[in-house]
Formats: sequence, structure tokens, C-alpha cells
Amino acid sequence: MRVLITGGNGFIGRKLAMALLHTGAVPVDHGPPRPIERMTLFDSVPSEDLPPDPRVEVVTGDITDRSAVERVAAQADLVWHLAAVVSAGAEADFDLGYRVNVDGTRGLLDALRATGRRPRVVFASSLAVYGGEMPEVITDGFHATPQSSYGTQKAIGELLTADYSRKGFIDGRSLRLPTIVVRPGRPNKAASTFASSIIREPLAGEEAVCPVAPETAIYILSPRRVVEALLRAMTLPESAWGMHRTLQLAGITVTVGAMVEALARVAGEAVTDRIRWQPDPAIERIVETWPVRAEARRARSMGFTDDGSFEAILQAHIEDELGGRRA
Amino acid sequence: MRVLITGGNGFIGRKLAMALLHTGAVPVDHGPPRPIERMTLFDSVPSEDLPPDPRVEVVTGDITDRSAVERVAAQADLVWHLAAVVSAGAEADFDLGYRVNVDGTRGLLDALRATGRRPRVVFASSLAVYGGEMPEVITDGFHATPQSSYGTQKAIGELLTADYSRKGFIDGRSLRLPTIVVRPGRPNKAASTFASSIIREPLAGEEAVCPVAPETAIYILSPRRVVEALLRAMTLPESAWGMHRTLQLAGITVTVGAMVEALARVAGEAVTDRIRWQPDPAIERIVETWPVRAEARRARSMGFTDDGSFEAILQAHIEDELGGRRA
Repeated sequence: MRVLITGGNGFIGRKLAMALLHTGAVPVDHGPPRPIERMTLFDSVPSEDLPPDPRVEVVTGDITDRSAVERVAAQADLVWHLAAVVSAGAEADFDLGYRVNVDGTRGLLDALRATGRRPRVVFASSLAVYGGEMPEVITDGFHATPQSSYGTQKAIGELLTADYSRKGFIDGRSLRLPTIVVRPGRPNKAASTFASSIIREPLAGEEAVCPVAPETAIYILSPRRVVEALLRAMTLPESAWGMHRTLQLAGITVTVGAMVEALARVAGEAVTDRIRWQPDPAIERIVETWPVRAEARRARSMGFTDDGSFEAILQAHIEDELGGRRA
Repeated sequence: MRVLITGGNGFIGRKLAMALLHTGAVPVDHGPPRPIERMTLFDSVPSEDLPPDPRVEVVTGDITDRSAVERVAAQADLVWHLAAVVSAGAEADFDLGYRVNVDGTRGLLDALRATGRRPRVVFASSLAVYGGEMPEVITDGFHATPQSSYGTQKAIGELLTADYSRKGFIDGRSLRLPTIVVRPGRPNKAASTFASSIIREPLAGEEAVCPVAPETAIYILSPRRVVEALLRAMTLPESAWGMHRTLQLAGITVTVGAMVEALARVAGEAVTDRIRWQPDPAIERIVETWPVRAEARRARSMGFTDDGSFEAILQAHIEDELGGRRA
């Protein structure tokens, strides 16, 4: 199989690539694992410190560059489309967001369609497609009425993925990802970045600012489970999706206060004392518009799972990012 | 006020234009009627037989022609965006559908945004945004999972209209129209065209073919009510829309058999004998995927109404299109 990962140098793209290289094969349609012959990591940012691997090809380019996209799409059997301008970025630069998140996605789908080989595509969408007036629990049939350009662009990407699939140009599947916690690396411009910072930085011996109140609830999934979900979405047979190509993933609902309490239990109060509680009304206003609970009945019936508890998310972070050490 | 109607030579565009010219003013935000100084009818097809009116400017052009669209958008205060490739057309020519229904809509919104004048926009969407597994009654919060390219493109148009509004570039409102019955004129390529043909042609002394079984139910609205709804959507204040810019209109649910029975009561069986029942599995398959009932609670609360009965729709057709005469 020839694999293409757009946004292959993002933190999820890299984790996914490492997982694929590690197993070396993909059990498509529950069949025997099929070996990965080639893996193209396409990203606007040059990839850093990837272990050398003869199967890996790193291509630095822009998802809006049609000829670059056509080149990397030409041979792909399995495509994970993760490249995107993130939420705050798409809100700050309207045209850039549409160019990358909408035109980039459509250009990729058109390039894949042009191959005539009907590649399989997993598109990373987001619970940012929800917004406005919402019930306490989002059900699978609830409408997407995004209140951000990012959410709008992701909703459009889902619609395109579904229509290109229905027409037989690709075999696409879209996953609405919960907020990913704990993200490794540095804070980014997403309004949700604090949700990882308040765990990651104190564990690394650094201060972190929490801009929302402890009772603020969020809907989260660990990087581990996200990678598992991206793999599962690719390997499930087409018949599992039926007429609906978009899936809200299951996550867990947790308050920021409960997250910090769990951190104190695992790492001690000396660690959680590094969190400064400093409300930021602008961030609070954005976070308040996010759904905090989804039923995700369909995802669960298709075998997608959540982390069970925030302690498990914390433990996974300590194992995967800190080599098991707590600061 | 300066009015722009795209698709201004379509049958709804023409009816809307005539209604606006007749009243000569628009009561924006429930305020005093504000006179129409100029009305631009933009369409790819040259307008026929419009009564001469110094306020009317007819522009023949393509909605995908950016400079033409910029010209007609430059001065517009109120825009009805009706131009579209219809359902069967968008299904038959994938690229044309996306070019006109998606790129055309986005180009128009960008041109309106560029004016910096925040024009008000009513976008004609469709219940074709629904599809796949559906409950018996579509509620206002039910998700749009279109099973046609046309429905996909309309759903994208709604998302764009909402996001451009949220950003303050326009003041947009999208209406999901039921199937419009009785359409005047000739049959077109829409799969729904029979729903008008089986009434219109027999009344005109011609034969019509009904490709679906009498028990087939459809969700319909008369041209009269559609024009009323397009006007109401424009005149309601922005506050009436809140965070949700898309509205499923109320229609009535009627079986094809009941429509024909009503026609027999009004016009006699000599008229309904002109209908040939000749099932077409391809048409039946498409029609079966359409929702047949919507709650439309929000639309009703905002003053949008249905026709009450099919007899009323029939009566309106006879009055409006046949000068009150029955064949």
C-alpha cells in the first residue's frame, strides 16, 4: 500500500506515521495486514528528526499548490488528510482558512479523483462543526451549525468527502475529533491550547496559565486514541459506513478543575501549584460555545472508544511523551 | 433600495421580481416600506417578455464570471441568490454543479463582501440537503447529510452564507425550500418535475406521465408561498435569525394520489384521465430518498406559512397561471 499523510509533520501526522511504520502494514477491511511500501509525508513545514526509513518520502509543499498535490496524490492508496489551518488561525485570516481548508481539501479530492483509482481517504474533521444553540448531549443526528470559520470549513470538507465518495471518486470517511488532550510540544494559537498546557507545562516544571474557570467542561480524547481512531477509520470496510461518511468520535467530558485534581493525585500539588488561574474572557467566550458531551452512539457501535478517564489520558501522556517520568 | 436577483429569469426569480415591482418597496426590519430604486435581474439566460420598467436592469451573464458578478454586486442592498444548476443537472455534470452552485455562490459572497456595505442576502437552499437515514419528521435540529451533489452544494452554500454573516461581511439568510408545486412552464430535468407536470399538463389539455406510485408522498409549497417566504426572509430583522441563518420552510405533505384526486374534484375526471401512470424505477429511487415531512417549528414561529391544503395550491395555480380557467 502507498500511504499519503497531509499535515504529515503535525503532531498527529507524525504519531500516525510512526505507528504505521512500526506495524508496517494496514489490515484493510479486516483482511490480512497489507504491507506499506511507501509513505509520503506532505506538509508545508519541513519534517524534523524523523528516523531514516527507506519507505518514507518527505515532501514539503503547500496543499493549495495543485501540481504538488497532484504529484503526491498520483500513487496513493490510503490518504489521511490532516493538513489544516487551525481554529484561531482560520478566524484571524479568513481568506487563508478558506484557501487551505476548503480549496486545499477540494484540490486534494480532485487530484485523487483524477487518478481513477478510487483511493481511500480519512478526513480529520472536528467538533468545531457544532455551535450555536445545542442540547446538553450532541446526538449523531444533530445538525452542524458552526460558529467559527474553522468549523465551517471542516463541515464543508465533510460534505465534499461524502459527495466525492457517493460519486465513486474516492472511498472517504470523516472523523469529528474531540479536543485533543494532552497535545505534546508547545502551545499553539488554538483557543483550546490551554487544555494541554495546564497539564504539559507543570509536568515539565514550567508555569502554565489557565484562562478558564475550574468548572469549565470540555470534551476530550488523547493523542493515542486519536491515532487509533484514524487507523480504525481507514481499515473499516466501506459497508460499515453506509450512507453516512461522517462520524462524531466518542470522547470523555471532564472539567478543567477535575483535570487539575487528577494531575495533583498523580504528580503532587507541587506540580499543580505551577498553574496560574487567570480568566481570559475572550477565551472563555469561545470555549463556552463548544459542545461538552456527545452521545457518539454510532462511533461506539463501530468500535471507536474513548479513554475511559482523565487519569488514563494523563498516564498515556506520561508514558508516551515523558518516558514514564513525572517532573 | 437596490435589488439584485441572481437567476432573475428563472420562474421564481421572475415571480419575485414582479411582486417587488408591483409593491415597489420593501418593508425592511418591519419598518416603513423603502422604495426600490433599481432592480438588477442577473441570469445566464436572456430575460423574455418582462414588462418595460425604468427600475429594471437585465444583465445576461454567468455567475462564475467574477467581473460580471462584481459589477452587479457593487451597488446591491438586497440580494436574492437563486441562480443554480438544478438537481439532475448537478448530478449529470459534477464539475458544472460545483462551479456554479459552490464557486458561483462563493464568488457572489466575496463580491458582496468587497463592497464593504454589508448587503442583505437571501439564499435559496433546498430540502435536498437532507438524505440517507431520516426520521419520519425532520426536526429543525436534524443534520444535513445530502445524497446528491445538488444537496451537497446547497448545504455548502448555507454554510458559506452563515459564516460570511457571522463575520459581518453580509447579513445572510438561507431558506430550505420544499418541492415547488405547481411550477409553471415546461418540464425540466429535475427528478421532481413530474409533481408539477401531472397537474399542469392535464389542466392545459395535454397528457402527462406520472413515474411514481399514487401512494408516494412529497413535501411541497406553492410558488405563491415561496415568493412570500423569499420576501419575508429579506424583511425580518437580523435579530430574528440569531445564531442560525438557515431555516427549513414549512410545507404540506401530500401523496401523488391525493393530488390527482383533488385535481379530479376541481377539474373533473376527464382532466385526470390525461395522466398516464408509468412507473420509472430510476425516478422512484430518487424520490424515495427525499424527506416527506418537516416540523419547521422555527419557520412557523417566524411567520412562514404553508399552503394549508393541496386544493389551495391547485386554486392558486389556476388563478395565477391560467387566469382562473380550467381546461
